Amino acid sequence: MTLIDGKATAATIKAEIKEEVERMVAEGQKRPHLAAILVGHDGGSETYVRNKVLACEACGFQSSLIRYEEDVTEEELLKRVEELNQDDDVDGFIVQLPLPRHISEQRVIEAIDYRKDVDGFHPVNVGRMAIGLPCFISATPKGILELLRRYNVETSGKKCVVLGRSNIVGKPMAQLMLQKNLGDSTVTIVHSHTQNIAEECRQADILIAAIGRPGYVTADMVKPGATVIDVGTTRVPDATRPKGFRLSGDVDFENVAPLCNAITPVPGGVGPMTICMLMLNTLAAGKKEYYK
Amino acid sequence: MTLIDGKATAATIKAEIKEEVERMVAEGQKRPHLAAILVGHDGGSETYVRNKVLACEACGFQSSLIRYEEDVTEEELLKRVEELNQDDDVDGFIVQLPLPRHISEQRVIEAIDYRKDVDGFHPVNVGRMAIGLPCFISATPKGILELLRRYNVETSGKKCVVLGRSNIVGKPMAQLMLQKNLGDSTVTIVHSHTQNIAEECRQADILIAAIGRPGYVTADMVKPGATVIDVGTTRVPDATRPKGFRLSGDVDFENVAPLCNAITPVPGGVGPMTICMLMLNTLAAGKKEYYK
Repeated sequence: MTLIDGKATAATIKAEIKEEVERMVAEGQKRPHLAAILVGHDGGSETYVRNKVLACEACGFQSSLIRYEEDVTEEELLKRVEELNQDDDVDGFIVQLPLPRHISEQRVIEAIDYRKDVDGFHPVNVGRMAIGLPCFISATPKGILELLRRYNVETSGKKCVVLGRSNIVGKPMAQLMLQKNLGDSTVTIVHSHTQNIAEECRQADILIAAIGRPGYVTADMVKPGATVIDVGTTRVPDATRPKGFRLSGDVDFENVAPLCNAITPVPGGVGPMTICMLMLNTLAAGKKEYYK
Repeated sequence: MTLIDGKATAATIKAEIKEEVERMVAEGQKRPHLAAILVGHDGGSETYVRNKVLACEACGFQSSLIRYEEDVTEEELLKRVEELNQDDDVDGFIVQLPLPRHISEQRVIEAIDYRKDVDGFHPVNVGRMAIGLPCFISATPKGILELLRRYNVETSGKKCVVLGRSNIVGKPMAQLMLQKNLGDSTVTIVHSHTQNIAEECRQADILIAAIGRPGYVTADMVKPGATVIDVGTTRVPDATRPKGFRLSGDVDFENVAPLCNAITPVPGGVGPMTICMLMLNTLAAGKKEYYK
């Protein structure tokens, strides 16, 4: 059984990015610049954004953090988004979700210039990905594809079952795994309304769990020899931990791992790859790889 | 076994549209206006466009046909697209595909204002559909969903297998069948690289074949009691027919039909629904239903 080490892979990729950035700078090009807007003080969001700033440093990017209090108006936020759209120095930017309830997340996402949408949430990027055109692909599914590639997991012609149909993970993941010249797998998406979830999962050569239910995938749901990717990162109360919680994946790792060809742990699997792929998207934005 | 009559259903829907249009006009609103650009003289395209014009008449729409010879430049075509984008009298328009090789279809599609993109091919519409937002949905998958609805075929929680992964049918069909509050099915997409295609198909409660291979789906690939939707319309030479060919579906109808709960014939199944859904999209464009 291979333990897929997302942390080490992410570190390797970040080193690759840094090397390229330093070469770009040495050639007189501009250092890629990622900006992030953070509204309020949600614990998870604070952590993510802090990690993004650290990752930018590791990659040699310039980074900016723009903060607003919870009571910022949608109008004010949209105005700032428009300024970032216009700012030639900023190559890409993200607005950290979730946003306070009085602000429409969709309106904010659609206000972002798709050419700077390194999160890949704008409809133009979502649509281009579905069609198979060059675009910013959202970080989690992109990171999973990259892990499968770097660990030489054969996907072409294999049966892939995606557990979950969220817009951010399940749906784009299914599209990438289906895509010709990418995953090229036979893809099934199962979700809350699926009958016989276990039976569907047992058919998977590659099982990607993204439903946010700790330990949901048990050993009887996994075909021996399968590759299992665990996207779940639910905070489970745990008094023995310094922070009072631990991260739990969607997979019953202890019992599933021995069956697998390869598996990602939580933490240290998909998580570190996500921020790393945001870095890769920022590099692409800096190089105007997808859009002029 | 129920024979799903796409021709009759399309006629019903067109009558419904006409009723609504006449009410709109009586209330002083503008008659919806669909324009079509046709380049060259491809037989299939000529037929489609002629049928679209006829369907417009049946629905009480205004219609315009703009023709170019094969040698039109991409620049000229893009200029005309931009004029249609700006023309307030035109609610929606399509550029009939395929285009001659010297013209980039993707560039033309992306030049169309997505608010007038009644074919639903623009990345904004493709992306919004994937996310589950209101948008123009491309006609063939939309028509299939409508047939399933009007024939009371239960889709929620059912297993749906989509055969084919084209951008125009297979992929959007899978997305619609997967979508919460729409198909809500467990969806598998199978394609040329799939191992055990027959075995996958046999699991389907709803089997949607869209690969363009005459008679590919045989009786051994269909679960008794399944609903089978045949999207194939391949022209097969047939000297006994006035035109020298007949349309053949992807399903071996004769042997599959007796097994089915319901099945669409070719012709007269999905085909007539496709143009009809373009009419529904044009009505929505006229009413500014999805976009202002």
